[in-house]
Amino acid sequence: MRSKHQILTLFLAILLLLNLGCFASPRKSIRSRRPCKEMVFYFHDIIYNGKNFKNATATIVGAPAWGNHTILANNNHFGNVVVFDDPITLDNNLHSPPVGRAQGFYIYDKKEIFTAWLGFSFVFNSTAHKGSINFAGADPLMNKTRDISVIGGTGDFFMTRGVATIMTDSFEGEVYFRLRVDIKLYECW
Amino acid sequence: MRSKHQILTLFLAILLLLNLGCFASPRKSIRSRRPCKEMVFYFHDIIYNGKNFKNATATIVGAPAWGNHTILANNNHFGNVVVFDDPITLDNNLHSPPVGRAQGFYIYDKKEIFTAWLGFSFVFNSTAHKGSINFAGADPLMNKTRDISVIGGTGDFFMTRGVATIMTDSFEGEVYFRLRVDIKLYECW
Amino acid sequence: MRSKHQILTLFLAILLLLNLGCFASPRKSIRSRRPCKEMVFYFHDIIYNGKNFKNATATIVGAPAWGNHTILANNNHFGNVVVFDDPITLDNNLHSPPVGRAQGFYIYDKKEIFTAWLGFSFVFNSTAHKGSINFAGADPLMNKTRDISVIGGTGDFFMTRGVATIMTDSFEGEVYFRLRVDIKLYECW
Repeated sequence: MRSKHQILTLFLAILLLLNLGCFASPRKSIRSRRPCKEMVFYFHDIIYNGKNFKNATATIVGAPAWGNHTILANNNHFGNVVVFDDPITLDNNLHSPPVGRAQGFYIYDKKEIFTAWLGFSFVFNSTAHKGSINFAGADPLMNKTRDISVIGGTGDFFMTRGVATIMTDSFEGEVYFRLRVDIKLYECW
Repeated sequence: MRSKHQILTLFLAILLLLNLGCFASPRKSIRSRRPCKEMVFYFHDIIYNGKNFKNATATIVGAPAWGNHTILANNNHFGNVVVFDDPITLDNNLHSPPVGRAQGFYIYDKKEIFTAWLGFSFVFNSTAHKGSINFAGADPLMNKTRDISVIGGTGDFFMTRGVATIMTDSFEGEVYFRLRVDIKLYECW
Repeated sequence: MRSKHQILTLFLAILLLLNLGCFASPRKSIRSRRPCKEMVFYFHDIIYNGKNFKNATATIVGAPAWGNHTILANNNHFGNVVVFDDPITLDNNLHSPPVGRAQGFYIYDKKEIFTAWLGFSFVFNSTAHKGSINFAGADPLMNKTRDISVIGGTGDFFMTRGVATIMTDSFEGEVYFRLRVDIKLYECW
């Protein structure tokens, strides 16, 4: 009988500790760095250069005093603002059927090297995905990989948060850029 | 006595399961899709057109190579950047007493149809609300309703997150737009 | 024996209540308004004015119809878009060794008084911090202190959220601005 009581006491002590653990700073202890959803996409940016209107998916809309709106400016494009509506594909082929559009803007924000700031959304309206994922963050584009924030989502991606890793998969001159995005969502509702 | 022990054992088992449930992926199981706060507002956007400076609440600040800063550009305004400081009202009357200001920018981001990207804040400083709500997301404005993300807040809206549904409530030509915003907050601190 | 049972029953009741508390709207009850991390930084904005290219860290890239890209526009700079890559320092000395860069943009968004909207990142790559913190929000810059949202982070600041309080620490004419930022993070993973 004595040992039974000891076991019970031990069991209750464990339950109590579990409870305290549940209350004490749960924001730190509970969270998992294992994504609740992972996805990989490519998107394709074709900047308007005065001659490619039909194919262009992006256009310069802001420039420094020394720039214009048809050619990216000197000094590492510092001050250029580009608006885009790029097709999203599942593989790295520009001509694959798009599964959505990447829409938003980027700003070249440094004189000395190429680096940018991004604000954009992935907008899906297919059988696979409906809804949007919103992104923001710094894109030091000379780095092989760059992390930006998933700041929210709607529809299938209701209230999501996470981190997206961007890689420049390919580029041709200063007109075509292809980006690979590895999305890891850590909050899924 | 035996049945008393059985009841106790069952009770302890339930407590244990509750504890495990509390730890196992709480991010998914605990969250409620019932908003912790709901609000409806209207805001009123009057774009500067070269003649209406006194009434204007918004102005074109970026344009594609084929555009300018007093008239929204051809090709569905693709590339126009508009900055705004719009009055927020509780009903759809432009002349109702404003309860705050909607401040930020939108970018028309597609050649083929009207669609935009929004980054803005609701700034309140009244007896009803003090603080700000920050928004970002894609606005495919030909759709009857569009969902964007509430990405944060300050003051009364400290650390909030949620989803806002935008509807074009009315417009006159390309100068006046009235938007209705249904805000649903799912994280309230 | 009786009192022992009473104590046990009381203990189990407490455990049950703790469990229920853990499940019932944890989003409201658990969250702490005590920051999990606090940091203070300064950043230094030197706007290009046509003559200071070497020292400039920011440049005008958007303007209203009545403005240009070398001087901030009339009407409280309404409609000016400025892109920046500003050094971050630990104290208020522009010449202190930078610990990172503040990169992004601000938009003057009101005719009647100075007020702005900010979207930017703190980008760290030092022994002290690696990673980025992303910010967005309204900056009514005539107020002594202004709160904006920390909308996400990467690296050392993985998935963080919080509130940053901005103060104009100093300014010289319309070329140099020094901002103090008190960052309070309430979600630390």
